Amino acid sequence: MSSASSTTFRPFNLALIQLGQITADKPTNLQHARTMVLKAAAGGDDPKTKPDLIVLPEVFNSPYGAQHFPVYAEPVDFVPGQPYDPAASPSDSVRMLSAVAKETGVWLIGGSIPERGADNKLYNTTTVYSPQGELVAVHRKVHLFDIDIPGKITFKACPPPALSGLTDDAHFARIGLGICYDVRFPELAAINARQGCQVLIYPGAFNLTTGPLHWELLQRARAVDNQVYFAMCSPARDLTAGYHAWGHSMVVDPMGKVVAGTTQDEDIVYARIDPQTFHDARAGIPVTTQRRFDVYPDVSAGL
Amino acid sequence: MSSASSTTFRPFNLALIQLGQITADKPTNLQHARTMVLKAAAGGDDPKTKPDLIVLPEVFNSPYGAQHFPVYAEPVDFVPGQPYDPAASPSDSVRMLSAVAKETGVWLIGGSIPERGADNKLYNTTTVYSPQGELVAVHRKVHLFDIDIPGKITFKACPPPALSGLTDDAHFARIGLGICYDVRFPELAAINARQGCQVLIYPGAFNLTTGPLHWELLQRARAVDNQVYFAMCSPARDLTAGYHAWGHSMVVDPMGKVVAGTTQDEDIVYARIDPQTFHDARAGIPVTTQRRFDVYPDVSAGL
Repeated sequence: MSSASSTTFRPFNLALIQLGQITADKPTNLQHARTMVLKAAAGGDDPKTKPDLIVLPEVFNSPYGAQHFPVYAEPVDFVPGQPYDPAASPSDSVRMLSAVAKETGVWLIGGSIPERGADNKLYNTTTVYSPQGELVAVHRKVHLFDIDIPGKITFKACPPPALSGLTDDAHFARIGLGICYDVRFPELAAINARQGCQVLIYPGAFNLTTGPLHWELLQRARAVDNQVYFAMCSPARDLTAGYHAWGHSMVVDPMGKVVAGTTQDEDIVYARIDPQTFHDARAGIPVTTQRRFDVYPDVSAGL
Repeated sequence: MSSASSTTFRPFNLALIQLGQITADKPTNLQHARTMVLKAAAGGDDPKTKPDLIVLPEVFNSPYGAQHFPVYAEPVDFVPGQPYDPAASPSDSVRMLSAVAKETGVWLIGGSIPERGADNKLYNTTTVYSPQGELVAVHRKVHLFDIDIPGKITFKACPPPALSGLTDDAHFARIGLGICYDVRFPELAAINARQGCQVLIYPGAFNLTTGPLHWELLQRARAVDNQVYFAMCSPARDLTAGYHAWGHSMVVDPMGKVVAGTTQDEDIVYARIDPQTFHDARAGIPVTTQRRFDVYPDVSAGL
């Protein structure tokens, strides 16, 4: 819990790319994602929206569906704690993401991609890049629908990344990652928040059934229960595709208010992340200090 | 987890009494609560609404506020596992609740009352009665705002009550209890749901700030995360009182849909609790079988 107060948290701008035009051709998808990152990095109509952190959606380089993932999967070969040169990555997607992060000088959460692990198993994997193009974090989706991946998967927990600012080395936030279905499992968000994350970001792709029922509800719930900013970034809806994404990428503040969002089409959602709102929420409703770990265990203890 | 599937769950009718006219005079409050239980037990306009289980709101016998609780607190002197005769209780409220449960032949969750424990400390306590008037469960509010009670309180966990039907001994549901602020702590609901509760009921009294922000959100979140029915029962709003309750007593189904509710005035909310909805939710979105207790602990383990 001590890390929660020791992590620097400064105001910053977030941009979620609700990416459209995801085709069967991966190079086309990578090119379009790159174009949209460049567009997002330029900021919106208001110059104050120029983002410090850009997010792509879940499975941004491949059609969405279990039958596609083995075809589009790439090796990443990232080993925590070992040096990694993204420019020499075996993954086309990692090379593109690293290059565009460096080119724009912006932090980049690379949505997710189907990954083929060194164990030859499939993963749904988020990669995160610094403004220098370094690969700084890798998160594999923890909770998988049976339909996603046949067989048992292995999860390697990675500590949430603390993001450094563009002009100095002071952190501007600690970001917790999850992917889509992970949002239905409160433990993941609770663990990241209790480990000091002030902002949780989940690329995700709900459908036209679960989207209207639960997409906003779950984000607002995770935000309020943990008193953090919470954002999910979806692909745009494409009714010609095999999977119809709900869209509605949004950013929720620590009081559960939706502070930015969009509907179903390709769009960029800009939001200002304000530490004061975070601190005010925690001062006003003191759940973070009134949990009863004498009655029930702390799911984040010992992780 | 095995208890979740082994607890019988049959359709039943629930009634929430959004009690008004809570005055400074306790005997008047008890008399009015009794009148409203009798009214609720008769059912609504549709004869099919005749309830099997009636719920009163948090602190139904006293004005709401830390300054009032020491004045209105009663000893209950219930010791788990020991015989207890509610008709001989030192608590006026317990005697009334037991008598009206027996008179109507309906299960009764007696909202909550300020209780003075055998340790001379104050508690915010829910008592539950069988249709025979037996006191079958006692729950003391786990999470207290600092403003509620000065000093440390002690919580004795009690297993969630399994309620038996009116005409036979087969259980109709296992009910988990919490009170008001408890709803902000996901662990309590998770523990009760994983211990086999299909329905969670929290008497509560949010105010005009937190009510519009979070009252519905938190109930829908607890319902969806745990795939259970979730209900909160509030006092009616009284703008002449020191505390202005939000009201809006409601029942949410396991998919997060508000299936019954009211606004701010005195009212009785009737709802049909349907096990099929519960089973359909769990079959459709299999979170109850896809939790990753290999990655994070189960908060209900060992409790």
